[in-house]
Amino acid sequence: MANLNQNFLNLKESYLFIEISKRIKEFMNNNPDVSLIRMGIGDVTQPLAPAVVEAGYKAFAEMGVKATFRGYEDSGRGYEFLREAVAGYYKSFGVQVPVDEVYIGDGAKSDCGNIGDIFSADNIVLVTDPVYPVYVDANVMSGKKVLFTDFVGSSLPEKVDIIHLCSPNNPTGAAYTYEQLKKWVDYALSNKAVIIYDAAYEAFITEPDKPRSIFSVEGARSCAIEICSFSKTAGFTGTRCGYTIIPKDLMLYTTDNTEMPLYKLWERRQGSKFNGVSYPVQRAAEAVFTPQGIQQTQETISYYRGNAAIMMKTLSELKITFTGGINSPYVWFKCPNNMDSWEFFDYMLKEINVVGTPGAGFGENGAGWFRLTAFNTKENTIEAMERLTKLLS
Amino acid sequence: MANLNQNFLNLKESYLFIEISKRIKEFMNNNPDVSLIRMGIGDVTQPLAPAVVEAGYKAFAEMGVKATFRGYEDSGRGYEFLREAVAGYYKSFGVQVPVDEVYIGDGAKSDCGNIGDIFSADNIVLVTDPVYPVYVDANVMSGKKVLFTDFVGSSLPEKVDIIHLCSPNNPTGAAYTYEQLKKWVDYALSNKAVIIYDAAYEAFITEPDKPRSIFSVEGARSCAIEICSFSKTAGFTGTRCGYTIIPKDLMLYTTDNTEMPLYKLWERRQGSKFNGVSYPVQRAAEAVFTPQGIQQTQETISYYRGNAAIMMKTLSELKITFTGGINSPYVWFKCPNNMDSWEFFDYMLKEINVVGTPGAGFGENGAGWFRLTAFNTKENTIEAMERLTKLLS
Repeated sequence: MANLNQNFLNLKESYLFIEISKRIKEFMNNNPDVSLIRMGIGDVTQPLAPAVVEAGYKAFAEMGVKATFRGYEDSGRGYEFLREAVAGYYKSFGVQVPVDEVYIGDGAKSDCGNIGDIFSADNIVLVTDPVYPVYVDANVMSGKKVLFTDFVGSSLPEKVDIIHLCSPNNPTGAAYTYEQLKKWVDYALSNKAVIIYDAAYEAFITEPDKPRSIFSVEGARSCAIEICSFSKTAGFTGTRCGYTIIPKDLMLYTTDNTEMPLYKLWERRQGSKFNGVSYPVQRAAEAVFTPQGIQQTQETISYYRGNAAIMMKTLSELKITFTGGINSPYVWFKCPNNMDSWEFFDYMLKEINVVGTPGAGFGENGAGWFRLTAFNTKENTIEAMERLTKLLS
Repeated sequence: MANLNQNFLNLKESYLFIEISKRIKEFMNNNPDVSLIRMGIGDVTQPLAPAVVEAGYKAFAEMGVKATFRGYEDSGRGYEFLREAVAGYYKSFGVQVPVDEVYIGDGAKSDCGNIGDIFSADNIVLVTDPVYPVYVDANVMSGKKVLFTDFVGSSLPEKVDIIHLCSPNNPTGAAYTYEQLKKWVDYALSNKAVIIYDAAYEAFITEPDKPRSIFSVEGARSCAIEICSFSKTAGFTGTRCGYTIIPKDLMLYTTDNTEMPLYKLWERRQGSKFNGVSYPVQRAAEAVFTPQGIQQTQETISYYRGNAAIMMKTLSELKITFTGGINSPYVWFKCPNNMDSWEFFDYMLKEINVVGTPGAGFGENGAGWFRLTAFNTKENTIEAMERLTKLLS
C-alpha cells in the first residue's frame, strides 16, 4: 500500500495566501467597482531589461540551427559562461567566488527547499521568526525539527545543525551588519552547523556597512552556502533562474564523524533530481551582468527604491514604527492603533482598497505587524500612500 | 554538527558515465586524429522546430514590455494554455486527460526523482532491470528499499508500494502491449501501489497495439501517474520542459489508512521546493502542439526513426539479437561473440571508433548487452553501421 510521507501531516495549511485571496475575492464580489492596489505579494512588475530580452531571442535562434543547437548541459551545474558571469558579479562588490563553486538553478526557492535533501532528518534547524515559510515547510516535510529565534539571534539553542538566514530579510526588510553576521558565523562554526544564506534581495542594499554576501564575513567559507536569484535583481520571477555558491571546503559529517564535501552531495542530489536550467534562460541571465544589463537592471531597482522611499516618508510622517525600505523592497511596520495584523488587513482593504500582507502569517513574532512591497508602480504607490495618510490622519 | 543524509552512502558511484568518459578520453589522447562517432548518450542533435523557436522569441518579447510582462505563475502548476495543449495532445491519440490533472515541470527526470518526496521512506519500490538509474538512485537517497524484476514482471514480490515503469523503455527500447500493461495495473491495484509511469519516449511508438499512455489501460487512473517530457518529442533536452499527469482520484494512505489525494501532496511539495517553469519555455512548449509544431517535430522524429531503421537493418543482417528501434530511438542488442558489455565497448571504440553504452551499466540484466541511440545524424549512423558490418563480417 502506497503510504504518504507522514511528515506532510505536520505542515501548517498555507493559511496566509489562501486566506488573503479569499478575503480579497469576497470583498471584490461585493464591491466590483473599486480600484484595488495590490502591495501584498513580493512579485515584480517592471519588464525584463532590453539586453536580457535580446539575449533570450538570440539563444532561441541558436536553438533553431543545427550548428548552434544545445542539448543536455553536460554538468547540470550551469554553463561556464553564466557561472563566470556570476563570479564576476561577486568580484564587482569585492567578494572572491571561484567559478567552480557556482551552481546555476531555477530559482532561490527551489534550492532553499531542495538543499535539505542532503542533510540528515535528525538535524536540528534554526530559523529566524518572522520567516519566509519555505524554510520551515521544506524542513518539516523531511521530518526535521525546527526551532525559532529572532533576526539577531538574541537567544540561541545550545545545539543546532542547520541555520536559515535571509538578509535583506523577507518579510522585515532588515539587513545584517557585518558584526551581526559575524556573530552568526561564529555560532555556526562552534556548532559545526551549516548556514543556508538567502541573499535574494542583496541587490537592494544601499548602506555600505551591510554585506551583500555572507562570504564577506571571515570564516563563512567553512560554514555557509549562499543562495541567490535573478528574480528580484533582474525581474526573473517568471523567467526563473538563480544560483547557489558552495565553497569546496565546506563539509558535512557522517554519524561516525567522517567529513564529506557538501558540494559532492549536492551534485549527487541534482544528478538524480534536476536536469539544469533552460539554455535560453541561462543566456538571458548572463546578459544581466553585462555593462548594459547592469545599467538597465539598476534603473529598475532604482525605480522600486523610489517606491520604498515614498512608503518610508509616509510612515515617518504618520509616526508609525517600521523597518526595511532602505536596503530592501519591503517595508515592515507596526499596525497602527494596536490593531492585530488581520484586523489591519481588513481595515486597509475595506477603507482604502489597498492589499498588504499580515505579518502574523510569517510567524509568532510577526503578530501586530504588516508588510508592503515596493514592486507596484510609482503611481499606485503614491496613490496608496495618499489613501493611507487620509485614513490615519 | 551538520550531518549528511546517510542514505547517500548507499548510492553506487555513477560508474557508468564516468567510466565511459574516462575510457574515451584515454583513447582520444592516444589517438587524437580518429573520427569518433558518439551513439552513447540519449541526447538529441536536431534543432528546435521553427514554430517552437518563434514562440520562444515572441514570449521573450512579451517579457520586455510592461503590459505583457509576466511574474510568478500563480499556481506553479503551469500556465493554463500549456496544460490545455497537453490535454489536447492526449486527446489526439484517444486519451482523456482533464486539464487540471496536468502539471508542468522542468523535465521528466526532475519529476521522476522528486515525486519520491511525498511517499513514506518505508515504502518498497519495484523497478524493472535493466533500468534508468534515476529510479533507483532517487529512491535510495530517501532510504527506500528497491527491489528488481524484469520488464514484464515475470516474478513479482508479494508486497510492493511504488512501481517505476518506463515504456518505450530506456535502455531496451521495448514497449508494453496493452495486455502487458494491464497486468501491471492489476498488480498495482491489488497492492494499492502507485505506478510511476515514464512515457518520455511515447512519441516514437509506431505499432498500434502499444499504448502511448498508461491511461489507455482500464483501472490506471486509480493507481498511476504518468510523467512525460518535451525532450525527445521535440528536442527540449536543453530547453527543459515536461509534464506529469496526476488523476484527481488517485490516493495515498496514512499509516492509519486514511486516504489523501496524491495531487494535494504533490502540490504541497512543489509549493515549497519548486517555482514553476520559465514563461518563454512554456510558450515554446505550447507551440510543439500547434498543427505547424506537430508537423515539424514529426519530421525530426521521422529522421531519428530512419536512423533506427538503418541500425535495425544492419543488426538483422549481422544476425545479432536485438530489441527496440521500432517504437524507440534506442536499439538494444546482445554483444556478439559472447563478449561482455565493457569488452564490446572497448572493441567498438578501438577498432571502429564508435561509442555506445554498455548494458551492464543499467543493471544486472543488462550484462552482455549494448545500447545504441538513433539521435546522431543520418550520415554518422550509416558510417557507424558500415564500420560495424566490416568489423563483424
